[in-house]
Amino acid sequence: MSYQPPVREHLFLLKDVLGIETYSNLPGFADAPMDVVEQILDESAKFCAEVLAPLNAVGDKQGCVWHSDGSVTTPPGFKEAYRQFVDGGWPALGSETEYGGQGLPAVVNLACNEMSSSSNMAFSMYPGLTHGAYSAILAGGSDAQKQLYLPKLATGEWGGTMNLTEPQCGTDLGLIRTKATPASDGTYRISGQKIWISSGEHDLAPNIIHLVLARIEGAPAGVRGISLFVVPKFLPDAEGKPGQRNSVKCLGLEEKMGIHGNATCVMSHEEATGWLVGEENRGLQVMFVMMNEERLGVGMQGLAQGEAAYQAAAQFARDRLQGRSLTGPKNPDGPADSILVHPDVRRMLMDARAVLEAGRAFLFWSALHGDLAQRHPDEAVRQKGEDYMALLTPVLKAFLTERGFAIASDAMQVHGGSGFTEHFPASQYLRDSRIAMIYEGANGVQALDLVGRKLGAHGGRAVMTFLAEIDAFVADNGSDETLKPFLDGLAGAKAQLLEGTLWLMQNGPANPDNAGAGSMDYLRLFGLTGLAYMWALMAKAANAKVTAGDADPFYAAKLTVGRYFLQRVLPDTGAALAKLKTGAEAVMALPADAF
Amino acid sequence: MSYQPPVREHLFLLKDVLGIETYSNLPGFADAPMDVVEQILDESAKFCAEVLAPLNAVGDKQGCVWHSDGSVTTPPGFKEAYRQFVDGGWPALGSETEYGGQGLPAVVNLACNEMSSSSNMAFSMYPGLTHGAYSAILAGGSDAQKQLYLPKLATGEWGGTMNLTEPQCGTDLGLIRTKATPASDGTYRISGQKIWISSGEHDLAPNIIHLVLARIEGAPAGVRGISLFVVPKFLPDAEGKPGQRNSVKCLGLEEKMGIHGNATCVMSHEEATGWLVGEENRGLQVMFVMMNEERLGVGMQGLAQGEAAYQAAAQFARDRLQGRSLTGPKNPDGPADSILVHPDVRRMLMDARAVLEAGRAFLFWSALHGDLAQRHPDEAVRQKGEDYMALLTPVLKAFLTERGFAIASDAMQVHGGSGFTEHFPASQYLRDSRIAMIYEGANGVQALDLVGRKLGAHGGRAVMTFLAEIDAFVADNGSDETLKPFLDGLAGAKAQLLEGTLWLMQNGPANPDNAGAGSMDYLRLFGLTGLAYMWALMAKAANAKVTAGDADPFYAAKLTVGRYFLQRVLPDTGAALAKLKTGAEAVMALPADAF
Repeated sequence: MSYQPPVREHLFLLKDVLGIETYSNLPGFADAPMDVVEQILDESAKFCAEVLAPLNAVGDKQGCVWHSDGSVTTPPGFKEAYRQFVDGGWPALGSETEYGGQGLPAVVNLACNEMSSSSNMAFSMYPGLTHGAYSAILAGGSDAQKQLYLPKLATGEWGGTMNLTEPQCGTDLGLIRTKATPASDGTYRISGQKIWISSGEHDLAPNIIHLVLARIEGAPAGVRGISLFVVPKFLPDAEGKPGQRNSVKCLGLEEKMGIHGNATCVMSHEEATGWLVGEENRGLQVMFVMMNEERLGVGMQGLAQGEAAYQAAAQFARDRLQGRSLTGPKNPDGPADSILVHPDVRRMLMDARAVLEAGRAFLFWSALHGDLAQRHPDEAVRQKGEDYMALLTPVLKAFLTERGFAIASDAMQVHGGSGFTEHFPASQYLRDSRIAMIYEGANGVQALDLVGRKLGAHGGRAVMTFLAEIDAFVADNGSDETLKPFLDGLAGAKAQLLEGTLWLMQNGPANPDNAGAGSMDYLRLFGLTGLAYMWALMAKAANAKVTAGDADPFYAAKLTVGRYFLQRVLPDTGAALAKLKTGAEAVMALPADAF
Repeated sequence: MSYQPPVREHLFLLKDVLGIETYSNLPGFADAPMDVVEQILDESAKFCAEVLAPLNAVGDKQGCVWHSDGSVTTPPGFKEAYRQFVDGGWPALGSETEYGGQGLPAVVNLACNEMSSSSNMAFSMYPGLTHGAYSAILAGGSDAQKQLYLPKLATGEWGGTMNLTEPQCGTDLGLIRTKATPASDGTYRISGQKIWISSGEHDLAPNIIHLVLARIEGAPAGVRGISLFVVPKFLPDAEGKPGQRNSVKCLGLEEKMGIHGNATCVMSHEEATGWLVGEENRGLQVMFVMMNEERLGVGMQGLAQGEAAYQAAAQFARDRLQGRSLTGPKNPDGPADSILVHPDVRRMLMDARAVLEAGRAFLFWSALHGDLAQRHPDEAVRQKGEDYMALLTPVLKAFLTERGFAIASDAMQVHGGSGFTEHFPASQYLRDSRIAMIYEGANGVQALDLVGRKLGAHGGRAVMTFLAEIDAFVADNGSDETLKPFLDGLAGAKAQLLEGTLWLMQNGPANPDNAGAGSMDYLRLFGLTGLAYMWALMAKAANAKVTAGDADPFYAAKLTVGRYFLQRVLPDTGAALAKLKTGAEAVMALPADAF
């Protein structure tokens, strides 16, 4: 039995926890009543499990192939699967209706994306990057650019990429050297080399639209001199079809530890024709719109790989017979008990469940706030949604990718020696999941974004609103005795998060390294508190079902896993806060030449 | 600059912290005064850095090749390096002088093994397994077997392996099916398939001596019916030279995530000729002697991979220019500062240092107790040494491999996107280090060994002695103000370890799952406490140097890293204890079919 899409979990969140039906008056939500959402998820699950998942190992083992003419062949089966993916309308779920999309709420689209990412992360990155390019043009493009590109990108007819990194600059985009020279016809000639370009070249689509950061001649140094350009592989002709071949070319593929099914390209722009997107020297602003979306998507990838790895480990544990239970044989007629009887195996599986179930809730809850930010008629709701998205994006990206990798590692551990061989999927999940901690801003960059930018924005409005929301939830539900452990755990974590927040506000300004040194601890504390809040929300929803007489073991299991979270995962908040409060001194004390 | 063997660290530990010169009256130690030890380490470092380290990436990329005649070719250069390794006398350092070894203390040998493992883990496993086979025959073999095999194994002239695992049994050796049928000449015919046999077949040595677990016809079921056999690839002739080819054969190599330079073999015994080692049905007892040694060696591998990965990350961080310090440019004339200025990069490097330096001390300190157990004239010292080795082996194996992998992952993170590519060594360190958490008893098995066997042995004598030793150290040094933070940290951790120990003793007997559920948390708490003790010992030694006017920045750095440990690593003890004390209930509550 391979990956089983967790539609039951998705429906519980969408319906019982987030109550998306209450937003049926909003655009997008109106077109997606619960029965339609359920159909969409079921169909997506079927496609992911039947078409994408079987290609996951193929992509890993065979990888992409670069040819000397600069073309790239994706792994066997990817092209046909991509065709089915496009024909099924899956890329367009979350795109705007005016550009041929279906305009579904992001929170519903996210559920589908989780399933495709769990099934085949390398494959799902092709449409993922395409949607990123779509969003950048939507955010910063001219009307003509939107009309020309967005319908093709929305449907997945064409592919898209982000061309940011260069050999001398990854995180520090101010160091970009790729040049843009204005031509007399209003276009630009783009020249330079870009590296690590995911989906940079492939055979899935007849055209690929590159979004390229470059420096216009004479632009100011640093990040204030970076502009964004659209550089199509084939210049669209008068009818908007792929025309003349542009001088952008893949020089080779990166050898890497995982996601072998996705082509990670070295791209060379040699006087390639490009069009400015948005204003000169303001390319990063547009890019950041897109990057925020991508970052949430990467957090989802962390979760998705963790989920797939957990499922593989759970299946292995059920099947593998080794040793006997410490409390007496549980499979007395067999040669041994299944390893599920061993508490330390359970611990690893329960750790995974406790984080995945609440991590998914945190991601969905945040995505819903993103939907509200865009669609809600009440300005206050929109602002809160925007605040939360800005605040939580770095938390979700870094926390879920870190935990997803840890879960993949535990999943390998459950497999024992089998996990280290390539006959089982554990190795691929571990290797694939690792990149999510790095790309779209390494996790340390997310932590710095959180404490350096997001925390203090608008006088700390976002974080204070979040903390107050938790206080209100605890107060409002205090009379519910069954919720007590969840409320106690949440209140304790929230108090520590508040203490950490105040510590940073007090000690960061005097020495910014204090904020930097504690940034990852703070992010982890934030993530754990967010999960505690989600467990409280889920416990409330599950309790309501149980109280109403619903005997579905799903709800009882939910409460059990939640209790495990409180006892076995949440205690880490204390150490995170303690470390944070030690500040920068010991972190920075060693002279540079001592490393 | 590639891997630099940390001889300075080794000498500090051997001389200043452990004071091995005070044991110069003991066998082995007498032959290794400090100047000789220093020469050995320098020579070993040179060989490792110049010969083994350059072959590490070669081994990873090219791997071993299996041929249809059952032979296996090791990666280019391995054969020549192995010849040099043997000619240099390196395999024999720690073996008994009566069998051609040099009889050096294990603690000195360990330093050399760490360097070879850091340089090339896959290569170092060939002599590592050979030494394991040596130890098994030494522990359980007849005089004739010892005379025949030990000199060849001690010098590395022949290779050795352990043939334990079968498809249906890894951890649960009671399920072994390989059969042994007595022949009329006193030998046995061994038949069965073994998997995951490291170094099972290769071209480095003219003969390979397999130590094979099998079941003699009619033996009792389970672990009480397992015997140990020596099965040479070539039967030694009357002169002890490789003679007739035995019917044991490599059917293929395992595809795996890392250690590609080591041949992981499927071995088929088809009526192979074997000789019983030790008594019938008591093979596991002999095997465990050897496995304990191997487990300490695997803990060392975790440390060694962590060290090599740390070094690569530190070098990358020094060289890579991205962004500016939060407190103003540190490299104002360059395009950017080195990423060493970023506190979160420092955090990852300091985490590594804080764990590696004390982890090495813990390993060496334990190995010295192993030496004392074997060589000290005082029975009480020998018993304490034995107690400590038994108690600490599972802690060192699991804690150091888990931490080594985490360090390798952080080292990749420091590299950013570069780390995920195979152009930098970070990926290999991450992939290679992962196996150490699994083999020689998965870490969960170590934790169970700790709480289930080692803790309660002799009424808890070993752990109580260890805790009392810490108490005495704290009391004896209480007047030293400079040591105060180290003593406070140690005393706090020790109190928590005591609390965890008592909790297990009180709650384990009533429900063994309580012990199992908390076993990994307890092991981590134990590991952290051990590291805190080592930091106190190292701080005392470094302080003594500083107080005596030694201006070597090495000692100041040591104290800085120690302070970091107290502030940023040690706080995790609290969560470990809290989780442990929640017991088995939540861990085991979910019905098996809910996974």
